[in-house]
Amino acid sequence: MKAIIQRVTRASVTVGGETMSSIGQGLCVLLGISVEDTHTDAEYMVRKILNLRLFEDDNGRAWTKSVMDRDYEVLCVSQFTLQCVLKGNKPDFHSAMPAELAQPFYASILENMRSAYKPELVKDGKFGTSMQVDIQNDGPVTIELTSPSVSSDPRQLSKLEKQQQRKEKVRSKGPSESSRAEKSALRARQDTHASSGADGDVSSEREP
Amino acid sequence: MKAIIQRVTRASVTVGGETMSSIGQGLCVLLGISVEDTHTDAEYMVRKILNLRLFEDDNGRAWTKSVMDRDYEVLCVSQFTLQCVLKGNKPDFHSAMPAELAQPFYASILENMRSAYKPELVKDGKFGTSMQVDIQNDGPVTIELTSPSVSSDPRQLSKLEKQQQRKEKVRSKGPSESSRAEKSALRARQDTHASSGADGDVSSEREP
Repeated sequence: MKAIIQRVTRASVTVGGETMSSIGQGLCVLLGISVEDTHTDAEYMVRKILNLRLFEDDNGRAWTKSVMDRDYEVLCVSQFTLQCVLKGNKPDFHSAMPAELAQPFYASILENMRSAYKPELVKDGKFGTSMQVDIQNDGPVTIELTSPSVSSDPRQLSKLEKQQQRKEKVRSKGPSESSRAEKSALRARQDTHASSGADGDVSSEREP
Repeated sequence: MKAIIQRVTRASVTVGGETMSSIGQGLCVLLGISVEDTHTDAEYMVRKILNLRLFEDDNGRAWTKSVMDRDYEVLCVSQFTLQCVLKGNKPDFHSAMPAELAQPFYASILENMRSAYKPELVKDGKFGTSMQVDIQNDGPVTIELTSPSVSSDPRQLSKLEKQQQRKEKVRSKGPSESSRAEKSALRARQDTHASSGADGDVSSEREP
């Protein structure tokens, strides 16, 4: 799972000229879910987004406060194009989780983020729709996050990562973890076109 | 080198309330230079940014046209925070190229991009200054690019990559390639704080 996190003074989502949601100061997060992602990746991402220290404190000391520390807002938008593999200069999106799987998964991520923070401060785009996302990037400050490819076997988590998890504020409230094997089986049963995002015509094209 | 490439309907850079530059349809590129980057990385990035097929053709067929094909604009902004390593939840920017090296390097990248395209269609931010970057992300469509860690030894370029380079439109007009060794030597002679970007107070902080 990849996230592009932009620190913003304001951000909004418009569909067909109509504003769907908007935030003031906070984070605009573009979230790209891959076919390999599980709830472990989602939990990591929610935890990092909410706890990353990208804001200053009241004395102007940079990189000291998180979006939660400051009671700022989060605008999260699904962005399958982040799961792009270039074939020459042509983007290929077969690594993106197919829309029919990505939509409920993405919804559960949003739900977990709202539960871990304040529901009214976490806004959303409109999944699978062509949107204009208006981002006033403040700084600019942009962070690219990729969830670590940790096995679901907790013995393989590094000591540091486990300490980190204990220290951080987000409690896992998500549904029980679905394994990569289950996901793969589900995928195998479906006709999987990676059209999990904006524009009706952006389904990825396989190279011959 | 990392780039976050957002397809935009418009984008602009404002400093202290004054608009420094603005574009209409095209690409907003946030560019993060690491201490390891050489002109090989820069050339790759310029080539990809200008040739990536992120736009549709006149018949509405998606992912077929590049920013150059469509005569659209590019707004490029230096973004050292992309070279972020997390220490827990605290971003550390010691991997970013120090400002005194990054500024001339970044300027040369912009120059190469202008030479390879049309100078008047490539706009810039204001290096090392606190900016508001206003991005109307169209789709949204966001691509994260990392330059491949190719050795400067051309024998190590894959056959595919060499074919690609021959096919693509951008001629390298940059200064002769400086090796990683030269860069390292230069760095070793300098007091290297990674304050290569926005805000006076964003120099990275070393963990004790």
